[in-house]
Amino acid sequence: MRVLVTGAAGFIGQALMPLLLERGHALTATDRDCAALEGAEGIRIVEGDIAAEATRRAALQGADAVVHLATVPGGAAEEHPELARLVNVDATMHLSSEFACLRRGAPFVFASSIAVFGHPLPETVCDETPLAPQMIYGAHKAMMETWLATLSRRGKLAALSLRLPGIVARPPAPSGMKSAFMSDVFHALAAQRPIELPISTEATTWLMSVDQVARCLAHALTAATTNLPESRAITLPALRVSMGDLVSELARQLGADPALVSHKPDQALEQGFGRYPPLTAAAAERLGFSHDGDLTTLVGSALRNVISKEKP
Amino acid sequence: MRVLVTGAAGFIGQALMPLLLERGHALTATDRDCAALEGAEGIRIVEGDIAAEATRRAALQGADAVVHLATVPGGAAEEHPELARLVNVDATMHLSSEFACLRRGAPFVFASSIAVFGHPLPETVCDETPLAPQMIYGAHKAMMETWLATLSRRGKLAALSLRLPGIVARPPAPSGMKSAFMSDVFHALAAQRPIELPISTEATTWLMSVDQVARCLAHALTAATTNLPESRAITLPALRVSMGDLVSELARQLGADPALVSHKPDQALEQGFGRYPPLTAAAAERLGFSHDGDLTTLVGSALRNVISKEKP
Repeated sequence: MRVLVTGAAGFIGQALMPLLLERGHALTATDRDCAALEGAEGIRIVEGDIAAEATRRAALQGADAVVHLATVPGGAAEEHPELARLVNVDATMHLSSEFACLRRGAPFVFASSIAVFGHPLPETVCDETPLAPQMIYGAHKAMMETWLATLSRRGKLAALSLRLPGIVARPPAPSGMKSAFMSDVFHALAAQRPIELPISTEATTWLMSVDQVARCLAHALTAATTNLPESRAITLPALRVSMGDLVSELARQLGADPALVSHKPDQALEQGFGRYPPLTAAAAERLGFSHDGDLTTLVGSALRNVISKEKP
Repeated sequence: MRVLVTGAAGFIGQALMPLLLERGHALTATDRDCAALEGAEGIRIVEGDIAAEATRRAALQGADAVVHLATVPGGAAEEHPELARLVNVDATMHLSSEFACLRRGAPFVFASSIAVFGHPLPETVCDETPLAPQMIYGAHKAMMETWLATLSRRGKLAALSLRLPGIVARPPAPSGMKSAFMSDVFHALAAQRPIELPISTEATTWLMSVDQVARCLAHALTAATTNLPESRAITLPALRVSMGDLVSELARQLGADPALVSHKPDQALEQGFGRYPPLTAAAAERLGFSHDGDLTTLVGSALRNVISKEKP
């Protein structure tokens, strides 16, 4: 089938598309700037703003399923709330409604976020944890989960919202993510550069490698048409990792000195990104989603991506 | 304080404003067509579309609190989903954000709806019942509850979303409400006219008189700044009434023949509006909200409104 990937030139989109091609899907890719996709074989490219009707119309042509990654992320949404609303809310409602008119009942996979839980988080997080977003970004994602569940309840779409944990290792370029430091530590140690982290060594976070999240998104295209919870939204399993353990494992695999990493905790970031409690993602596991397995595998997988990108 | 009422010329707005004036508030009223408000003393009127920034700017001037009633209701939202999105989502997000910039932390009362629960409803509904809207209208309301709770969590507003049950008796004019028949039976019996209802005599529904909902909305202006549930949304208490009992009580108070009412159940409407289970609205009751008390009081209150409107 033909899968439309929005936000396709982004970090996750670029990891997802080769996997979808491998699995025999035809692809349409859309993003504001598709330069990164030039030369990609077998991909129909629609360059444009997803908030524009013309872009959506061209992108949706012939699509049998959608993976909607395009978003204005956390930090950027706080700085530009109106732009965030246009992309995260308006464009998402339009894209989903327009796709439902063209292909009633077809899979629509939505990249939601653990930001829907807000902070401080409860002592554990599970499928019953109520949503309580704190950031504009998290509120937008929670609202779209509601919208997509409604369209699914009406038989118009087979939507599945996946709440993504921290994904590593994002490219070093500015991403608009408040949690970018979580990826920066991979790049710094790979380059044997010192880095100061804004969270403590005891800080815990939920992580997944970009290759693993790509596998989850690909799996969601199938899972979307199976028997899903009423909310049509699941929290992806993730490894709960302390910064200390992450730095040790990175240093070990890279032969780098862990002393390159220093910590100067910022209270807001420590609270927002460093206090992740144990996570039970039972609904996702029942549906066949999984995390990286263990820290060694996660770090190895993330580093393969870092190192292949940094070689010419 | 000065209270802005949106959708002020509507059925609920017109019942609310005299009550707010009585309690010593200054009022700004906004609606697309304010003809119904002409001659009202002590009310600043801003006629215009709430989806237009200029209307909102003029309306918000000097406001210390907002009661946001303007909406595209259930049936109309199904027919005009894009208009519904503009009013129920965009305008609500804009109005709340703009008000938060002007009057940080001030009360913002939002008329949500029991449509957030969808149908079929579970065997009982309580404060823990998950939202599962079926109609576009219910989805929009649920999304705005999330948005307003986020703004409140951030200290920007003191929002309180009240989920309104069926309100009687709406005027006989087309309201865009799928449940309009619930009010039409009041008008028909008051005029000794026969009426055919699209739900059965056993159908149960949650009702509140318009004067009672006005009291709840006025109370919400105070309750919004107290200790609220994390969701900042509560289901209002309502009387659970069977159509048979409602018709008998109406006929009794009006000296009308209950045989004027016949029933020809429509499956969709019976399922959507005639299967309301027992309701426990504990959170609302703790906050001091209440229903009409009993069916005799509810019918009497609703009929006072019907009869005063029908006299020249």
